[in-house]
Amino acid sequence: MSFELTILGSSSALPTSNRFPAAHLLKVNERFFLIDCGEGTQIQLRRFGFNPARIHHVFISHLHGDHVFGLFGLISSMGLTGRKVTLHIYGPEMLQEMLEKHFYYFARPPFPLKIHVCEGTEIVFENKQLEVRSIPLKHRTSTFGYVFREKIRELNVRKEKIREHGLGVADIVKIKRGEDQIAEDGKVIPNAELTLPPYKRRSYAYISDTVYDPAIAEQIMGVDLLFHEATFSHKDEKLAAETLHSTSVQAAEVARTAGAEKLIIGHFSTRYKDAGHLVEEAQAVFPETYMAEDGASYSLPLQREIR
Amino acid sequence: MSFELTILGSSSALPTSNRFPAAHLLKVNERFFLIDCGEGTQIQLRRFGFNPARIHHVFISHLHGDHVFGLFGLISSMGLTGRKVTLHIYGPEMLQEMLEKHFYYFARPPFPLKIHVCEGTEIVFENKQLEVRSIPLKHRTSTFGYVFREKIRELNVRKEKIREHGLGVADIVKIKRGEDQIAEDGKVIPNAELTLPPYKRRSYAYISDTVYDPAIAEQIMGVDLLFHEATFSHKDEKLAAETLHSTSVQAAEVARTAGAEKLIIGHFSTRYKDAGHLVEEAQAVFPETYMAEDGASYSLPLQREIR
Repeated sequence: MSFELTILGSSSALPTSNRFPAAHLLKVNERFFLIDCGEGTQIQLRRFGFNPARIHHVFISHLHGDHVFGLFGLISSMGLTGRKVTLHIYGPEMLQEMLEKHFYYFARPPFPLKIHVCEGTEIVFENKQLEVRSIPLKHRTSTFGYVFREKIRELNVRKEKIREHGLGVADIVKIKRGEDQIAEDGKVIPNAELTLPPYKRRSYAYISDTVYDPAIAEQIMGVDLLFHEATFSHKDEKLAAETLHSTSVQAAEVARTAGAEKLIIGHFSTRYKDAGHLVEEAQAVFPETYMAEDGASYSLPLQREIR
Repeated sequence: MSFELTILGSSSALPTSNRFPAAHLLKVNERFFLIDCGEGTQIQLRRFGFNPARIHHVFISHLHGDHVFGLFGLISSMGLTGRKVTLHIYGPEMLQEMLEKHFYYFARPPFPLKIHVCEGTEIVFENKQLEVRSIPLKHRTSTFGYVFREKIRELNVRKEKIREHGLGVADIVKIKRGEDQIAEDGKVIPNAELTLPPYKRRSYAYISDTVYDPAIAEQIMGVDLLFHEATFSHKDEKLAAETLHSTSVQAAEVARTAGAEKLIIGHFSTRYKDAGHLVEEAQAVFPETYMAEDGASYSLPLQREIR
């Protein structure tokens, strides 16, 4: 029942010796979701102990090199290590055509590749536990953020209450869905009395790259963990607007408006030798702000709601 | 008067957490020559303290991902850091077309890019100090090795001898070129008496990827430093032949036949957890064999010949 984010790369367009280009890895119940794939992602995966073969879904925000140049090597290595199962890649429209051209010059992978084109705010992936929604962002090319949110789980029944009321399998199915129970005497037993409080739906939003857009907050309301790009310092707000990037303070404002629990900022311009002051600027608006670092992990515990 | 090789990446097709894909950097008299450019080369350059902006010539052996996927990020970053001067790239014919297609989907660099197509054994680059020769190799796609060799330098005159014989500027020019001096009395003063012994011409050969081919040795006779791929152990000779790669022992045989001074082997298959035994196999044939390691440097001293 894990929900754990690992930052594989945290640089902006120019990598440094400490920061590889953009790549995040989200583990949800032992399934791995890769978000962006900057140059060297396959190396970072190995360095931090992850097996690339276990990745089946890759979400690409946009076709700028620092978010996608690692895809070529990752796909190539997956083929060389005998992958047979489908790799699903989600991203903007040009992704498929770009990869087709690339494969013309390099080896076509010996496993199926399924490209899913994102078009707007929509669910692009779901399984029993999780749904992933794409969010259009405003950048210099077609760009999408991604929100990963656990689905509502079946409720856990209080076994002693089931026994007390002598309830059967058919009743339990309904109770697990959240229905109240009507006793034989017509009395209503509220669902909350028969079940444990539900688990909180854990969530993670990846927002990179984008100009400051308050509308993003509406689409990620109540998110637990938010990564929001902060290419620039508050002092360089004008530059951020011109290049369609965000500042530290703007990232914090999105987090505050969305009611996020935790904010991670990264994608810092290399003009700042130490991005510490960007984090401080953001913390003044949103105290729970952290600096993205390659290899850092954020684990969200499984918790029940308080009724 | 440096002649120094730094290995930036030493893996074969699959990088590991210790070995990045193929990339070598040769510094000759403060000029930098990049040979192959596997994924993450720009990161390795920064990690080992080299400024990518100082590279003006890149030699690509062949269009397999582990030798070329770093080119996209390197070119992109050069553009972002304000490069204006031409970048020269040498390699097989398809390189230009492949890059053109790539630039259609990603940013075209804001500086001139000049592609030089290698066609056979020929001088592909030369300046006052150095010449670079391409050597066709036998691999699964059009592949070239590269030999970097210092040119013959002008001889240094023995000043005391010039004074002793009362020689003028016109004489000195001829003497520096290696000519003997005819004294006024018709007596021949041998050039060796008037000059210091010439400097040895330092050389480096990069041979990757290739099946074992004794003809390579003929084209790199007397090379000081040889990198030769050794994807496989001697025990897997059959596999090497099938995949058009070489074994440790075959690399050593090329070094021995060529009369090389030092051999570096690398590009080891990840099937060998420790490539130590490949080096031992090679050393049995050619004792001066070293294992390629990311970050390792080999500096060739400037030495005069012994007359």
